[in-house]
Amino acid sequence: MSSAMQDSGIVVKPRGVMPAGARTLPAAYYVDPHYFKREMDALYGRMWICVGRTEEIPEPGRFVVREVLGESVIVTRDPRGGVNAFYNVCRHRGTRLCTEPHGTFPGSIQCPYHAWTYDLEGRLIGAPHMEEVPHFRKQDYPLHRVHADVWDGHLFLNISADPPALRTQLADLPDKFTEWRMQDLRLGQRIVYDVKANWKMIIQNYNECLHCPNLHPALNKLSHYLSGENEPLRATYMGGRMDLRPGVDTLSMDGTCPREFLPGLSDENRRRVYYYAIFPNMLLSLHPDYMLVHTLWPQAPDRTVNVCEWHFQPQEVARPGFSASDVIDFWDMTNRQDWQVCELSQAGISSRAYTPGPYSNREDLLYAFDRMIVDLHQKSGDRAIG
Amino acid sequence: MSSAMQDSGIVVKPRGVMPAGARTLPAAYYVDPHYFKREMDALYGRMWICVGRTEEIPEPGRFVVREVLGESVIVTRDPRGGVNAFYNVCRHRGTRLCTEPHGTFPGSIQCPYHAWTYDLEGRLIGAPHMEEVPHFRKQDYPLHRVHADVWDGHLFLNISADPPALRTQLADLPDKFTEWRMQDLRLGQRIVYDVKANWKMIIQNYNECLHCPNLHPALNKLSHYLSGENEPLRATYMGGRMDLRPGVDTLSMDGTCPREFLPGLSDENRRRVYYYAIFPNMLLSLHPDYMLVHTLWPQAPDRTVNVCEWHFQPQEVARPGFSASDVIDFWDMTNRQDWQVCELSQAGISSRAYTPGPYSNREDLLYAFDRMIVDLHQKSGDRAIG
Amino acid sequence: MSSAMQDSGIVVKPRGVMPAGARTLPAAYYVDPHYFKREMDALYGRMWICVGRTEEIPEPGRFVVREVLGESVIVTRDPRGGVNAFYNVCRHRGTRLCTEPHGTFPGSIQCPYHAWTYDLEGRLIGAPHMEEVPHFRKQDYPLHRVHADVWDGHLFLNISADPPALRTQLADLPDKFTEWRMQDLRLGQRIVYDVKANWKMIIQNYNECLHCPNLHPALNKLSHYLSGENEPLRATYMGGRMDLRPGVDTLSMDGTCPREFLPGLSDENRRRVYYYAIFPNMLLSLHPDYMLVHTLWPQAPDRTVNVCEWHFQPQEVARPGFSASDVIDFWDMTNRQDWQVCELSQAGISSRAYTPGPYSNREDLLYAFDRMIVDLHQKSGDRAIG
Repeated sequence: MSSAMQDSGIVVKPRGVMPAGARTLPAAYYVDPHYFKREMDALYGRMWICVGRTEEIPEPGRFVVREVLGESVIVTRDPRGGVNAFYNVCRHRGTRLCTEPHGTFPGSIQCPYHAWTYDLEGRLIGAPHMEEVPHFRKQDYPLHRVHADVWDGHLFLNISADPPALRTQLADLPDKFTEWRMQDLRLGQRIVYDVKANWKMIIQNYNECLHCPNLHPALNKLSHYLSGENEPLRATYMGGRMDLRPGVDTLSMDGTCPREFLPGLSDENRRRVYYYAIFPNMLLSLHPDYMLVHTLWPQAPDRTVNVCEWHFQPQEVARPGFSASDVIDFWDMTNRQDWQVCELSQAGISSRAYTPGPYSNREDLLYAFDRMIVDLHQKSGDRAIG
Repeated sequence: MSSAMQDSGIVVKPRGVMPAGARTLPAAYYVDPHYFKREMDALYGRMWICVGRTEEIPEPGRFVVREVLGESVIVTRDPRGGVNAFYNVCRHRGTRLCTEPHGTFPGSIQCPYHAWTYDLEGRLIGAPHMEEVPHFRKQDYPLHRVHADVWDGHLFLNISADPPALRTQLADLPDKFTEWRMQDLRLGQRIVYDVKANWKMIIQNYNECLHCPNLHPALNKLSHYLSGENEPLRATYMGGRMDLRPGVDTLSMDGTCPREFLPGLSDENRRRVYYYAIFPNMLLSLHPDYMLVHTLWPQAPDRTVNVCEWHFQPQEVARPGFSASDVIDFWDMTNRQDWQVCELSQAGISSRAYTPGPYSNREDLLYAFDRMIVDLHQKSGDRAIG
Repeated sequence: MSSAMQDSGIVVKPRGVMPAGARTLPAAYYVDPHYFKREMDALYGRMWICVGRTEEIPEPGRFVVREVLGESVIVTRDPRGGVNAFYNVCRHRGTRLCTEPHGTFPGSIQCPYHAWTYDLEGRLIGAPHMEEVPHFRKQDYPLHRVHADVWDGHLFLNISADPPALRTQLADLPDKFTEWRMQDLRLGQRIVYDVKANWKMIIQNYNECLHCPNLHPALNKLSHYLSGENEPLRATYMGGRMDLRPGVDTLSMDGTCPREFLPGLSDENRRRVYYYAIFPNMLLSLHPDYMLVHTLWPQAPDRTVNVCEWHFQPQEVARPGFSASDVIDFWDMTNRQDWQVCELSQAGISSRAYTPGPYSNREDLLYAFDRMIVDLHQKSGDRAIG
């Protein structure tokens, strides 16, 4: 135990010892397009993906367009309040219906080309001159649907044909995080990062703090890198918590908290930050006074767009001259430090000289995550063969 | 019949009814590089391609360089007035001879590297120090030729080894359009568009006006979208005509015509616009007072450079302060509307959700064109196999 | 013999006559990625590559980073004065250690991610928390080495596992060029060119002056293109010399030489320029008063980065207000003329119309070089099959 730890009164829990010979993933997992495609198909193509917040489509007709696995998807709200998602593809000649990233439909969705028109539940309601064509029936040409669902304000899509329920994927997380009342929070800031690294590298970086003393001295000053505890890896998520150091109120530039804590949080949870990677694309970081959400949008084996959002209590965001630069600047700085080493790792792993390396006992979640990824590829490979 | 049509006195001719189950082309025809290559080889690599106008090389030595199927080709006029085309490749070390897009040769073509020199008919007339090499004979190293020919001022190239005559490809078109005296017209304006869509999509867009009321309200106000008549598809072209609405003199911003009509046009043809797609790359639009020519230059399955030219009577272009913004602006606006929906269709068709859709009876030429394209691929496929 | 030569008193030595039917290389050697890869593997991946000068790492801890065959390599000097080269890859998670192109290590090399630390001979000397992992031994994780060696101040790397000595590759060159005392010279100027041509084209361009009268009139005025003599091609280099015309002191804008000649040069060598291509990537041009070095860094079949350096006697470079624009401008102009025709040749050779052409007797080294390249591919092909 370091003297810094004894000074701070932090209790370090021992972690499982790595099996002899445990090694990080071979380079192909980070650079090979076939591996990337397999992960996109087996994870992003089958699991629920977090694509934003319901506050972005508050009323009927409001919409956002999201790019999921190269597919443009319209997410909108119908007059009965339901959330619907459709491929952005007209049934006549395939034309994209919607060219704006967000906006409001005037009660229906009209194709700019030949004016085929759909209602907000995707039914074809207008198709000029098609009535002259024998056997043509409007009901045969609804928009193609994408599955959509919501968890405490988080919007999820699933582009597979017949997915299990979102609740199945989330397992016990909704119960675990009820206390934070995430559905009440509102967006304060969004920063989009373009990271030249594999998506898994960002998840691995997120799930260990061994790198914190060296890379994030400011973070390590607020929350000791050996503090807290990890949960064992689950089928659809992994995570743990870290403790704030004595005298620190939240993760901000100076450790003070000018905002009220989230209502309903236990005293214990007011002293902790929870970090959960919800596979495949959501990183949920719950602080005493705000929620940080990263969503990952893999573009290539070596490139991931990372959308980072800070959410606060609505009365904070509504305040005239609202600013949360104390926590936005803190995490923006920390994010950039992380993306830089992820990019350096991506570059190095592409080298012919790279060989998998050993894990420390502090990289227990990564070891488990990597094994899960290896299993996934082996199963996908079997499927491809079998 | 719409009331707008009854108001305008337009006679709508019924068109052939689509066969049951007729569907637009599968996505591969627009996105698959193999399909693209097959079309380039079988159509662009074998047919005559329109590459400009003879007015660009009026005297001996004047030249233009064109890029055809990735090949740089020099087109120039020899002292006897003949039009010659050569690959832009020196016979010594392959060096490009010509780096300017147009200009004038000083009586011969000299390679910048080792000064090999060719006359304007492509014969090697100078090769420093090669006389020391036994068996070397200048007559063995003429420039490689590309076939060139002319129709009423339109310049055509054919890069296949032994093509049929240009007249064979043009069939009855020279007779059909004699009245417009195209050889007398002169370039007034050129605009080059870079369209992120497959070349066939631009041809399909050109050959139906079902999209006009929705996409081109200005055009539809001057020429009713249901007016006119199509010819049945021919082996090497397709087209038809549309009528100007009463009180409209030509397709211009306000429908008036500040220029004289082309001399020799019948009264009937002064009330019509002819739209002919001459395969594979020329769109010829004949108006009462001007000629509009689009040439298509496919770059990739999803990208086509489109060169649009407006040609007028020479005394118009020669007039001090000549401007034809009334028709240039009109078609530039209309072009941009078309390219945008072509790009939206290209984007949508790339989606996994795209499925071929039904044609309306107003898309009769497209149906025929698509069948021809399917046949072409089947034959090319057979050739590839057999 | 030309009258210009008779005027200048240049003696033209006859060169070997080309065998009947000798032809330049087919296009694949310049455009096919498989050919490129084979050359990279068999030449750049096995031979010693010139990567700079030892003056760039004068003291222990000073380093440069070079990109060799896509591999980032750290070259540094250890406390005992030795030159060491390492792959820029941490043994823990593969992270790039060094992000600056040059600089000074503070006695050791530390990874920015988890702080693994190496000494300047590549030994792992720090790895936080790894002592908790059973069986982990620091001595198992040194940095991966790249072979490094030095010739008269020129720094060479070899990325193959077990290369022959640098001296073997250099053969008799060290003896041949002792007189120039290259180890004493210092960098005066560096210009980096990005040439859109195959690396072999730059070597071929360098080794014939038949193109000089047409392309480099200024050079030809100082040194007649038919002067001098070539050595027969050797296994690892090829070259020859050219003579300065009477009254010309060096290759500079006006042929005068404001610097002292290199000490120790014979009278004969003060009237000559030596041009040696040392395979695979170094072009060494020795002038009476300066050394010009090009190093080639192939990026793709059709793209080569070319680093050009001018080196002078140290007292020249140290002089206040040192300028050598007379020779820098001269060669920069000449370089740009060369790269332009190389790019034109690359473009032309990519044409379907390109066919190999005949050599003149003045292209004797190119003929020999091309034969060596053909042999190399045939042997590599055999290896690939066998």
